[in-house]
Amino acid sequence: MKRYQEAKWTNAMALSLDYNYAMADFVGAEHGLGAEELEALTPRMQELDQDLKSRRQRGELAFYELPYRQETIAEVKKLSKPLLEWFWDFIVLGIGGSALGARALHQALCHPQYNLLALARRHHKPRLLVADNIDPDALYGMLDAVDLRRTVFNVISKSGSTAETLSQFLFVYGMLKGRLGVDKARERVVLTTDPEQGNLRRLAQSEGFRSLTIPPQVGGRFSILSTVGMFPAEMVGIDLDELLAGARFMDVRLKEGEFKHNLAYRLAALYYLFYTCKNRPIQVLMPYASTLTGVSEWFCQLWAESLGKKFDLQGQVVNVGPTPVRALGATDQHSQLQLYMEGPHDKLITFLEVENFQHLLTIPSLFPELEGLSYLGDHTLNDLIKAEKTATAFNLMRNGRPNLTIRIPEINAFTIGQLLFLFEVTTVCLGGLLGVDPLDQPGVEGGKHTTYGLMGRPGFEEYRQTLENAPAPQERYQII
Amino acid sequence: MKRYQEAKWTNAMALSLDYNYAMADFVGAEHGLGAEELEALTPRMQELDQDLKSRRQRGELAFYELPYRQETIAEVKKLSKPLLEWFWDFIVLGIGGSALGARALHQALCHPQYNLLALARRHHKPRLLVADNIDPDALYGMLDAVDLRRTVFNVISKSGSTAETLSQFLFVYGMLKGRLGVDKARERVVLTTDPEQGNLRRLAQSEGFRSLTIPPQVGGRFSILSTVGMFPAEMVGIDLDELLAGARFMDVRLKEGEFKHNLAYRLAALYYLFYTCKNRPIQVLMPYASTLTGVSEWFCQLWAESLGKKFDLQGQVVNVGPTPVRALGATDQHSQLQLYMEGPHDKLITFLEVENFQHLLTIPSLFPELEGLSYLGDHTLNDLIKAEKTATAFNLMRNGRPNLTIRIPEINAFTIGQLLFLFEVTTVCLGGLLGVDPLDQPGVEGGKHTTYGLMGRPGFEEYRQTLENAPAPQERYQII
Repeated sequence: MKRYQEAKWTNAMALSLDYNYAMADFVGAEHGLGAEELEALTPRMQELDQDLKSRRQRGELAFYELPYRQETIAEVKKLSKPLLEWFWDFIVLGIGGSALGARALHQALCHPQYNLLALARRHHKPRLLVADNIDPDALYGMLDAVDLRRTVFNVISKSGSTAETLSQFLFVYGMLKGRLGVDKARERVVLTTDPEQGNLRRLAQSEGFRSLTIPPQVGGRFSILSTVGMFPAEMVGIDLDELLAGARFMDVRLKEGEFKHNLAYRLAALYYLFYTCKNRPIQVLMPYASTLTGVSEWFCQLWAESLGKKFDLQGQVVNVGPTPVRALGATDQHSQLQLYMEGPHDKLITFLEVENFQHLLTIPSLFPELEGLSYLGDHTLNDLIKAEKTATAFNLMRNGRPNLTIRIPEINAFTIGQLLFLFEVTTVCLGGLLGVDPLDQPGVEGGKHTTYGLMGRPGFEEYRQTLENAPAPQERYQII
Repeated sequence: MKRYQEAKWTNAMALSLDYNYAMADFVGAEHGLGAEELEALTPRMQELDQDLKSRRQRGELAFYELPYRQETIAEVKKLSKPLLEWFWDFIVLGIGGSALGARALHQALCHPQYNLLALARRHHKPRLLVADNIDPDALYGMLDAVDLRRTVFNVISKSGSTAETLSQFLFVYGMLKGRLGVDKARERVVLTTDPEQGNLRRLAQSEGFRSLTIPPQVGGRFSILSTVGMFPAEMVGIDLDELLAGARFMDVRLKEGEFKHNLAYRLAALYYLFYTCKNRPIQVLMPYASTLTGVSEWFCQLWAESLGKKFDLQGQVVNVGPTPVRALGATDQHSQLQLYMEGPHDKLITFLEVENFQHLLTIPSLFPELEGLSYLGDHTLNDLIKAEKTATAFNLMRNGRPNLTIRIPEINAFTIGQLLFLFEVTTVCLGGLLGVDPLDQPGVEGGKHTTYGLMGRPGFEEYRQTLENAPAPQERYQII
């Protein structure tokens, strides 16, 4: 494997941005931005830049420092080593930010059918499964498909109080104890949680479970480069050094590069202007690479939970937030593209384009008598996917549909590290432009409290009562 | 397996709809519908009903008849039988409607980790993989993970001219020929295509490939209950009779039931009113069941491609179409819910709720000293997922966020048959209300032509020229 930390590789592996097709020069004045509109935002971006820098210095934006924490790698590698000698399956029990990071890294950076490969072809690393729901059939099915003696469970919850994850953990641990006894059960569990607080930390201390620490200031959706994402990644053989090196490379680029060439600020400015001035509430992320599906899912959480807010920082009701939608090229040209091309002018599309895939697949010249096939012969699938992306972006532009492209030289740990870090900074920056707090999620508390009430948790009786006292559903609004 | 075709099971397995939380009585007058608004749509729905019935009689809506085509089952079973004796892996080469149906059925109706099970535990049925992209790494990875001698490839393209699918086919067939010789290569290919026309039909005739027929009037996104979805389903052991019986049950219910209790018409009316009168352009489909993820993807294609249109039937520019978004409960409570709860009032959420899962998983009472865990003990995961869905719907409603629930008694072939058919009729019906043609997709032609031009297909030179003659991207709109 090439190591991109070496200086000679670094620039060749840098992400780039092309937003020509978002501009009025191309997409027309009605739907595109003028250069002066972007320019006019510069003073505000500079203020924001100062604000983010001072918040970073005060330690309020802890995710910024994760790429520099070599101790994460050390902690993760130390814990993984003995596990890698015995276990064939690795199951993450987590939800939201505790699940999406592991899945994104696994899909992007391992063999595309990693879990189907025989053990030797996985270099004796375990399969990775992510149990991120409480659907009883899905959980049972997952446990049913593995050998419990050879499976390690990574329970991830920063707070240690996530009902879904704790329920999964209790169920799994009960099953392990019953089948293997308490000692072997304990060996098969790793808790990733706060270093000091919460139920899982207390259990680690009192019951002697193996555990990893999440830096206290890092929230779930910004945790992919902490132990949360890094431990599963190490277990499946992803190069953690390269991943963090990529993130650091992006950080340095954003911090030290010329202000007007700041990728994150430019992206945030584009998203902000299309959302607020161009009335485009939907942000589509459409990689032309199947292996980036998990990265899109991760992005959608980061975006929705960070930016979808009722109140701004002054406490005014704003009910703000672009809706992220994930699509996949070229696949969704046969699904969502018709809508993007002809439907309402309410979307901005961001493509992720991969310059070089690992494999070059040449289409053979067969059946020359069939014109409808023969034109494909001697081209490569690599040409075809590139042509389709070019054609889609171009035709969208010609239909007045603004779009922009982030180019990724190739998919590897170094470029994915860059991409993840770029999206994190862009999100925080867009939060600043929209005037909301990108680090909280007050809107989901109500549902949690009602659930606690329904589950009989002491102290939450009133929430159950609120539900029970509410007007009953009416039969006339049902079809049975 | 219970057979739901028997009369005594049928009503217990019927889907139902609850739209209380979409109504002004619950969600408030600003965000909800009045009963009179729905009522006012009745004359229009009745006209539409007549129109759909006569179009159905004229054979213009061929998908309506698929549940009655016993010959589909016969054709599929006959072809499958010898294949099931030899093949361990089954790979669909298709895109859009040619891929989404197989995946939806497989995820919903097979073991949740079907592909990871050993052959005997799959009842000696093959694994099912769907190659629905031209990403070279994804395709190579898939071929690399199977034994080509034991793999059958199902090439699906109605027209026989889908560039992505033909390219995959040529690559795979070239590889098979090279490794196994032409006779064995031919045996490993099944073409599903038009009975008379197109490249694939001509190849079936001239080269002697096995083939299946798609009824000529059935378009890709309405083809799940044709050979397109049914052949892969048969290969993995799904009960085709039950699937079609479920669809027929829904058809009869929609045709013969009381007009005001027509599920599809009521759903279409709700979607129409929220889209046009309540200014909610985003339609979220959120099953509380991991196994319905594929059904959501299938729905998003059906919805986007059928309804996202530039012109109405009179040729007026309308640029219409709700944007479908798929979410997953309870998982996305930790991802998208914050946005749905507090963001802009631009969404209508449809929940799919499963009444009974196949497994009942009891959470054991462990660690009684930790209050934050102990309240979960002796509940079931089944209780928890139901409580979370109830809590989410209730809190959304209290925040002025309209939502409705389709209840599914349990997930089986009979209920999934109902659900698919219901969504198809609802889509056609909503197309009628919006005044667009739900069966065409003119917006994707431009991109196809440009791709053909870039790939050097004779007759498409002008499209390449248009691209090349267009103004070049400017450096000032790039960050490198």
